[in-house]
Amino acid sequence: MTGTAPAPFAADDYRARRERAALAAAGAGLAGLLVAPGPDMVWLTGYAPTAETERLTLLVLTPGGAPVLVVPALEAPDAARAAGAPGLTVRDWTDGTDPYAATAALLDPDGRFGISDNAWSMHLLALQKALPGTAYASLTDALPMLRAVKDPAEVALLAAAGAAADAAFEEIRTVRFGGRRESEVAADLAALLRRFGHSQVDFTIVASGPNGANPHHEVGDRLIQPGDMVVLDFGGLRDGYGSDTSRTVHVGEPTDEERRVHDLVREAQEAGFRAVRPGAACQEVDRAARAVITAAGYGEHFIHRTGHGIGVTTHEPPYMIEGEERPMVPGMCFSVEPGVYLPGRFGVRIEDIVTVTGDGGRRLNDTTRELVVVD
Amino acid sequence: MTGTAPAPFAADDYRARRERAALAAAGAGLAGLLVAPGPDMVWLTGYAPTAETERLTLLVLTPGGAPVLVVPALEAPDAARAAGAPGLTVRDWTDGTDPYAATAALLDPDGRFGISDNAWSMHLLALQKALPGTAYASLTDALPMLRAVKDPAEVALLAAAGAAADAAFEEIRTVRFGGRRESEVAADLAALLRRFGHSQVDFTIVASGPNGANPHHEVGDRLIQPGDMVVLDFGGLRDGYGSDTSRTVHVGEPTDEERRVHDLVREAQEAGFRAVRPGAACQEVDRAARAVITAAGYGEHFIHRTGHGIGVTTHEPPYMIEGEERPMVPGMCFSVEPGVYLPGRFGVRIEDIVTVTGDGGRRLNDTTRELVVVD
Repeated sequence: MTGTAPAPFAADDYRARRERAALAAAGAGLAGLLVAPGPDMVWLTGYAPTAETERLTLLVLTPGGAPVLVVPALEAPDAARAAGAPGLTVRDWTDGTDPYAATAALLDPDGRFGISDNAWSMHLLALQKALPGTAYASLTDALPMLRAVKDPAEVALLAAAGAAADAAFEEIRTVRFGGRRESEVAADLAALLRRFGHSQVDFTIVASGPNGANPHHEVGDRLIQPGDMVVLDFGGLRDGYGSDTSRTVHVGEPTDEERRVHDLVREAQEAGFRAVRPGAACQEVDRAARAVITAAGYGEHFIHRTGHGIGVTTHEPPYMIEGEERPMVPGMCFSVEPGVYLPGRFGVRIEDIVTVTGDGGRRLNDTTRELVVVD
Repeated sequence: MTGTAPAPFAADDYRARRERAALAAAGAGLAGLLVAPGPDMVWLTGYAPTAETERLTLLVLTPGGAPVLVVPALEAPDAARAAGAPGLTVRDWTDGTDPYAATAALLDPDGRFGISDNAWSMHLLALQKALPGTAYASLTDALPMLRAVKDPAEVALLAAAGAAADAAFEEIRTVRFGGRRESEVAADLAALLRRFGHSQVDFTIVASGPNGANPHHEVGDRLIQPGDMVVLDFGGLRDGYGSDTSRTVHVGEPTDEERRVHDLVREAQEAGFRAVRPGAACQEVDRAARAVITAAGYGEHFIHRTGHGIGVTTHEPPYMIEGEERPMVPGMCFSVEPGVYLPGRFGVRIEDIVTVTGDGGRRLNDTTRELVVVD
């Protein structure tokens, strides 16, 4: 319910990001960037409207031009208070006037623009109609790495979020699992993330027994049983930056097969981590982790990519996936999270956030990756 | 964190809505509807993915065709459990395959489609690229009234949400205002909404003294003073349907001017309410309320439209604004919320949700509209 992001950045930080973004836009042959409320806007201005609505709010960045924030008049006072507002021209519009015409007047009518992935289609369609000569590309297509390389202050915030998530894991492994519902353990996890400083909990996956074989099973009313594998995958935002970590625990002593599959995923995760180094392609991380699982005969059961970036969201470029040939760069932060999913039986996933350093990678999560036995 | 909407509708209700929507699409000359996660999807399927991400989830409705839900394989099991899933063909796709090609194969390559307002631009751009012969219109442009007319079960849910918000107001008027921060009273309001059954609190505006003159001021650390007018505007979702009500209270005895402005807004709100009747244009509600304020010389201080629809969101068509010539229809539900905002001094807003009946309107909020004096 607050109009400003909690991250401790100053007006100059936001100004520098906008200048970098405008330069990158020019370098990509774009006439400008159209930035919608959400992570791009938070990162470039510190401004987060209370709600995203049908009323147009849009940051227009053009190479060489002054940045303009188009905003409903009702929300202009809140926007003007954002940490990154200094240096922005706020252009407000009132109900009954046409915000698209006002925005179109700022744009090259024959230009090609990058637009936030999550910008509402209704706004894009209205701009396409107002300026039929323009063309658009999503920011993920046009400038996928715009927010991907974090500066040291950002890495420090991600490390603090990761440490808080790790602290939550150290507590959750001591609670009772057997005989409780997934939803109860998930509520414990959410409370722990908040206790360790998270302002927002994005997900607290507790996937027990056969539910663990669905990588996106969130949480249900299933009673956790003795003998269950339980996948825990949790994260959110702390001081405006994300956490996301997974560990798989076992209720009581595991079978040999369960231990073998867990060891395999741990080896794959280690291989993925070791593949992190500046200059190598992102897909190398996926290949390294996948090779371990495929060699063991479980390739068909690793049914998702190995990782995704993290920053002011818990899910953003770069993606660690076959075909992503762009290189890793120091300051990039992403998950390394291979898994094996045996339908109807159980799943295992192990996930750390890793940042690219000058000569390799550094984990921002560091709880044990051995199979933890819980009660 | 749940994959299904809480509204107590059955598979047949969702099926009937989809059939009505497909018919409306055909009637509007559309080859189909492309429905993104969010209120349209909740209303048509009961499905709400945990998070909206760069992974495409899209309901494709074509007149005469079977409805298809395109969904990431990871999320397919959750989607299949939604209350409205029966009757849907779930087409899942895995990381590394192209969901846009799969979606394009379902669409008339020369068709014109309606697309959810809030569908991500990145998805629309990919479809435009995959099928250059297609055209698109936002659902608000193409079928603005798709969700606007509520059936009796929906009106009952909105009435229950309104009653809960009213109960929250009856409690909040008894708490201390003077000497406490806006943020503290807002926290009280949020707790009350939850206590009276809300699962989600969308906004709890507490705008005291000069803050009240900014209609979208949310809440801040300002200490509320004796002598302050305080605008309260709060709502959220209860059983999947929205509440939204405003009352303005005064800390201690108001001045004659404050009382006069409050009386004026009350008369304007009453005039807006009396303009509600089936067959009249939506703009008549705005005109009626505005005429009262303009006649008293405060026209320039009523700086927003008079109302907006409400349903599975707290903010949707129809809009009660000059230029909205579409008629009111029994079952429509919307706010009537005129206000007067005196910069640097104070603001007043009074808001009820109203539903259109066979011969007029019925309020879904009914706490006193007299100026309430608080401590």
